[in-house]
Formats: sequence, structure tokens, C-alpha cells
Amino acid sequence: MVTGTTPRTLFGYSSRARNAVDQPISYLMALALTQPDLISLAAGFVDYDTLPGVDTDTLMHEILSDPAASKAALQYGRTQGLTELRELAYQHLAKCDGISPADYPGNPDCVALTTGSQQLLHLLADLLIDPGDIVITAWPSYFVYTGALSVFGACVRSVDIDEQGIVPEKLDALLATIAEEGNLHRVKMLYTCTHHQNPTGITLSAERRPQLLDIVKKYSTDHRILLLEDNAYRELTYQGEAPVSIKSFDTTNEHVALLHTFSKPFAPGLKTGYGLLPADLCEKAMMLKDGRDFGSANLSQHLLLRALQNGAFEKQVNTLRDAYTKKRDAMLGALDEYLGDFMPKETRWTHPTGGLYVWLTLPESIDTSRHGPLFKRAVELGMLYVPGDYCYPADPTRTVPKNQIRLSFGVPTVEQNREGVRLLAQAIKDVAGV
Amino acid sequence: MVTGTTPRTLFGYSSRARNAVDQPISYLMALALTQPDLISLAAGFVDYDTLPGVDTDTLMHEILSDPAASKAALQYGRTQGLTELRELAYQHLAKCDGISPADYPGNPDCVALTTGSQQLLHLLADLLIDPGDIVITAWPSYFVYTGALSVFGACVRSVDIDEQGIVPEKLDALLATIAEEGNLHRVKMLYTCTHHQNPTGITLSAERRPQLLDIVKKYSTDHRILLLEDNAYRELTYQGEAPVSIKSFDTTNEHVALLHTFSKPFAPGLKTGYGLLPADLCEKAMMLKDGRDFGSANLSQHLLLRALQNGAFEKQVNTLRDAYTKKRDAMLGALDEYLGDFMPKETRWTHPTGGLYVWLTLPESIDTSRHGPLFKRAVELGMLYVPGDYCYPADPTRTVPKNQIRLSFGVPTVEQNREGVRLLAQAIKDVAGV
Repeated sequence: MVTGTTPRTLFGYSSRARNAVDQPISYLMALALTQPDLISLAAGFVDYDTLPGVDTDTLMHEILSDPAASKAALQYGRTQGLTELRELAYQHLAKCDGISPADYPGNPDCVALTTGSQQLLHLLADLLIDPGDIVITAWPSYFVYTGALSVFGACVRSVDIDEQGIVPEKLDALLATIAEEGNLHRVKMLYTCTHHQNPTGITLSAERRPQLLDIVKKYSTDHRILLLEDNAYRELTYQGEAPVSIKSFDTTNEHVALLHTFSKPFAPGLKTGYGLLPADLCEKAMMLKDGRDFGSANLSQHLLLRALQNGAFEKQVNTLRDAYTKKRDAMLGALDEYLGDFMPKETRWTHPTGGLYVWLTLPESIDTSRHGPLFKRAVELGMLYVPGDYCYPADPTRTVPKNQIRLSFGVPTVEQNREGVRLLAQAIKDVAGV
Repeated sequence: MVTGTTPRTLFGYSSRARNAVDQPISYLMALALTQPDLISLAAGFVDYDTLPGVDTDTLMHEILSDPAASKAALQYGRTQGLTELRELAYQHLAKCDGISPADYPGNPDCVALTTGSQQLLHLLADLLIDPGDIVITAWPSYFVYTGALSVFGACVRSVDIDEQGIVPEKLDALLATIAEEGNLHRVKMLYTCTHHQNPTGITLSAERRPQLLDIVKKYSTDHRILLLEDNAYRELTYQGEAPVSIKSFDTTNEHVALLHTFSKPFAPGLKTGYGLLPADLCEKAMMLKDGRDFGSANLSQHLLLRALQNGAFEKQVNTLRDAYTKKRDAMLGALDEYLGDFMPKETRWTHPTGGLYVWLTLPESIDTSRHGPLFKRAVELGMLYVPGDYCYPADPTRTVPKNQIRLSFGVPTVEQNREGVRLLAQAIKDVAGV
């Protein structure tokens, strides 16, 4: 929060600055800071207890006590990132999809390392969106990205999801409608979080993956529409085999940008994400990144290279899977226990096989929004959630539901997850008058 | 460098992507990589030998072996950066200007930490520049920023400098001309590197500092024009007392953004810069940064906090001053020795009191540009320089001189600085036919 008097004369702000608004989540973060005793099932941070301090300590010392390695890591890096880490990241993507790197789309020169995957998400919007251009997202979708898109003046249109993710027929119908409206040339991108989606925890089914790609290709007549596959939660799969990426079907590396991060599966403090992009898009993205920062934190990249090389990364992923499985199970168990009997025809929640989020739908009569009675009562009782309406983009053709909630089980302990859900259930019953 | 076939159908690029061009410096960097035996007096990197590996090792271990400190550093940070580091950064700025923090413009809440100072430079352009807006720079100026400005469609107008920096009367005259043209409402910013400027090494004189601020205020009639004071080389002062910042005269914290970095005085691999901004501008900048990355590398910030606390930062600055003084003296001595007799009326160079650059002006008949005979001959002989024409913005009202050279003494050793200058002098004499 910035303090100071507001001078009388403004600066001459750009159209983008005038479009920028405070992220609604800022209010929740401020609330959590002023009331630290609140149990927050709202934060998208990661589990504290499992952060890899010991391995990071060992690997940092390996780098910094070796004069040559130390100098390489403390000097400027390259805009696109450390070559050796880009190679291992590419191999990791291929391995996630069970494909030999030799047969995987693209190559390590099409991998870019960025300041978290958020920077790459933002760069791709910067590359493609002029005011009035159309971005298609799921309904609901990752709200921080929706906020970033609004800065560029994007017009968001959205597609329904069911328990298997985006419904291909609905995507096709939406694009057909936009084409009929004469606006297909304005459609720049389909944004989709394909594994354990933020905010719902839903994973796009295996069958639908090539279908979405085919639809995007079918409508790429004026220009290629980018299929932006945000796979931030790919490694955090707790149950069953995760389906392969949409990218794996983009054999010529022309249509899909696949984004991963080291924040969720290793450590956010290193602030390093990456993506495998079509070659021409990668080249353009790096031109923009040159002007932005000519390269993200180089020391972080050297650390991550060693973590991938010596197995610390894989070990950490396994540790996280165990820890988050327990937390997920605690949250789902508590939902069963405390809300299992509550208006069961109208109350339901997702059962994610990974990620950090459970999506709770309540009867339509219960307003979950920040200014509604439930939010106030939940805070009074001592817990915090993300109102579901935060997660819907401003699609001019739709009305935002106000009876949903995003719950994150990543940060609170097992006990806090149970207690947070108990308090939420109490608040729900209080405002419903049962 | 990105490889791959170019698909037939393009993506639908934004106006900013279409404005983006390869930085000319990319060619030099690629050349240096393919011919590693070249002595490069071109790179803007920092001295390798003095990079603070040992201190960084010690401080990292302090953080990472302490469970609480480790978890705080490996978790997500805040968009604006670590509070305690912003406080120390503010105190450092006040100390550089010899003013008590209690009396310094602004406060720590107006300090933002970014992915190098480059990100903050870029954010400020993003905040202020719509296509056709005017940015005033020195002639010549820091070329990476000029490239970034071009992405936003800025129209650059430039002001002459002499050995004391930007000439106030010329700035006033330029703004008067722009006002007469009816375009004062399009002037968003004056960008100036005030200490040991990149590319000339020239420092703005003490007398001119409040004058520039007064001129910017005088023309801030339609809106506040931002005076962007890039002080990346502030700590790298080798001789005499550096004048106080322009910021120190902006007592109400309304007109000047003062940018510093930890890259030049400590370690670029941490990729952390910062700025003290007017409160309203800082708030807007953080809204845009939310969408870009919601915070730079948090671990780097925790490390720098300890480096400032325990004196490692100050020690490193002193080490660098000693090392760079020797390098600067080697370069200046070699210029005297090898070019002292060469067409002395038309050959001259700057004698910087700090920073990393010497600016060499040759007779107008000698074309120093990348496609001219001198550049080719210098590479043949085994050295690399930055052609001076790279450092001039595309001001539509001016013709770019092609008889100048930027020399960097930071990366090469003392011996390489001498040898590089010897080879350059030989190349100059070869193409001049003497």
C-alpha cells in the first residue's frame, strides 16, 4: 500500500495505466495481514513446512563456493534464460508427457525462462492484444490473468466448463458465433489451465485435449489463434495419471504455448517460470523481454539447474504430493462432515485430483460475494475464502454467479483446513438460518 | 537465438509486438559469443573477478539454514517488494545525498523493488506512453531504454549535452518549441542518466540539477511531466564527490522518479533494482506490476537485505571502486598513449569520474558504424566496441553522428583494457591510412 498525499496535477497516464485496476484479491490479502488470526482458505501461496530450505542451502553453497560457478551465477544472464536449464526444462516437459525429447514438439531453443510463469502469461498478452481484441477463457478462469488482460483492453468471451473441463462443442459454437459477428480476426488467444484448474480444480479430460486444438486450428484462418496452455499445477497430481498436455498434439510446434513454473513444484521465492512456445512467437516474446528486463534472476536459474540435475526437484515434488494429498483429503473430509447434509441438491464441490483448489457451489439464495452476508459472517467466525465471483471474467454477454467459493488447501495445515471448513459451514448455516 | 521454421500463417500480433525490433546490441553479443577470443570493450556486464561470491555464500547460508528465514525467503513475496529492504534502500538513497532520512523526499512506501532497474524503467514507460507521446532524452542516451520506448510508439526528442550533461537552456528551448507546435500535452517524461552517463560517462553538474527540475515543473501545465532520473552508476564514483540527486530537490516527492540498482554496485545475478517514486505514480506502477509478475525474485531481496545490514554491500562498493578505478586509468592511459598524437584537433574522449564508459569522438571522416570499415578492421584485429550511432535515439529532427564509439572498461582486465585500446588505435590508423 502506497501512502502520501495525492498531488493536484496528475501525470499523463497511458491507456494501459488508465485500464489498470486494483486486483480484488488485494483486499483479501490486506484483510489477512490486519487479522493474522484468520484461517485463510483464500491464499494461493504454497505450503510453508515443505519449502526446500535444506536442499536450497546445499545447492547454493555448491554454486557460491565454486569461484567459476559463483561468477557465472552472479553475473548478468541472457534474456531467454540459462541454456542448460532450458534444455532440462524441455526434457522435463517431454517426460511429463511420456514422450522422448527427440520426438517432442519444438526444441530447447523454443523454451523461455521468465519471472514466474505470470511474466510469460503477461508477455503473451502484450504480444497479441490490442484494445478490442478477443481472448477466450473458461468460465470461471484464473482471475489474476483476467486482470492482466484488462490492462491491454482485451474483450473476454468465455466457454462453459463441466467436470471434464472446457466443453469442445461450446467452444466451437462460440467461435462460430464470433465468426458470424464478423469478429474472428479479433480472436487472438484461447487461455486454458488444463490440469487442476485455478479456481475449480477441474482437469481437462484426455479426450477433449486434441479436440480443443483442432477447433483452434479450424478457426485460425485469418491468423493463428494461440492456444495458451497454463500448466502451473501439472506436477501437483495426487491421484491417477494426469492426461498428456495439449502441447503434445501440436507436433509442428505452431499453435500451443505450454507454460509451467518452478514456483508451485519447488519454491516461489526463486520466481522462475518457463514456457515452450512456437519458434516465431518465442523470438517476438524475447524482443519484448529485452526491453522489459533483458533476463530474469540468473542466480535462481543456476540454483534450479542443479536442483533438476541432482534430483532435489523430483524429491521436492514427491514431498509436496504427500503433503498436499493430506491437506486435500482433510478439506474434502471436512466438507463431507460439515456440509454433507446441507441442502444436498443445491450444494456440491469438486474433488480435484491435484492442484490447490476446491470449488464449492452453494444454493443460489446464498450470496458469497465480498459485500454479501456470508463473507462478513465467515470473517466474524474467523475464516477467509475467495468469493467465486472474483473468478469470472467480465464477459459482456454473461451474468456472474454469486453462489460459489474458491477454497485453497495449500497454505493452512491439515488441522486448519478442517477448522476453516467447519467455520465456513457454520457461517453458511447461520446466514441460511438453519 | 530462436530456431525453427517460420510457419506460413502469423499470429495476430499487437501494435507493440509489431513495433518491437531486435536490439542492435544483440548482434554484438552474438559476435562476442562466436569469437570468444575478441577483446570486448563493448559489453555492459560487470567485472567478473570482484563478484561477491564469498559474502553471498555466507549470507545465503545464514538465510537458508534458519528455518523461519528460509521459509520467508522461499515463499512468494509482495508485488512492491520486501518491506525491510525498501526501508534500507530509502535510507541508502538519503545517505547518498547526505540528507537525513527524516528530511528526504517521500518515504519507504514510495520505494518499489523490481526485476533490475530496467523493469522499473519499462514500467514507467508503460504507465505514461501512448503512441505518439513524447519522451525527451539526452543526445546521446542509454540505448536499451530507447529501444524499450519504441515498443510503446514513443516519439523521442533529444537535448544536447556538453561536458556538464544536459544543457538547461537547450531543454527549455526544446520544450518551448514543442509548446509552440501545440504538443506540450504529449510530453510525458524527461529521461536522464545523471551520474557517469551511459554512454558518455558524463555527470550532470550540481548547478544544473535544480535547473532541470525547475524547467520540468515550468512546463508541467497540462499534467506533471515525469523527470526520470536513472542513477544506475551512482555508487560507482571513483573521483571527487558526486553531486546530489535531482530527486533531493523534489522535496514534495511529486516530479522525480529516482532509479537505482543493486546490479552494478553488488551483483547483477540477483536482478534487483529499485526506485523512489511519487506516491501516486508508485501506486499505479504496482497495479501494472501485479499483472506482470506480482513481485520479483523474493530470495534475492532477502539476500540483499542482509548484505545492506551486515556491511557486505558497502564493502563490495569499495572493492568495486578500487577495481574499476584501475581499469578506467588503464583505458585512459592507453588512449593517451596510442591515440594522443592522432589528429588531436578532431579526436577526443571523455574522462569519467565514475561508471563504466568512455566516449570517444573521432574525426568525422572516420565511420565507426557497424557496416563501416573501422568496425570490420577492429574485429579483424581482435577487439569489439559499441558503434556510437547505436546510442542515439531516432529523433526525427536530427542526424545521427557516425564518428563516435562507446568503450566499456568494466569487464576486461587492466591488461585487456590496454590491449583493446591498442588494437582499436591500430584499426583507426589503418582505416585513416596513417
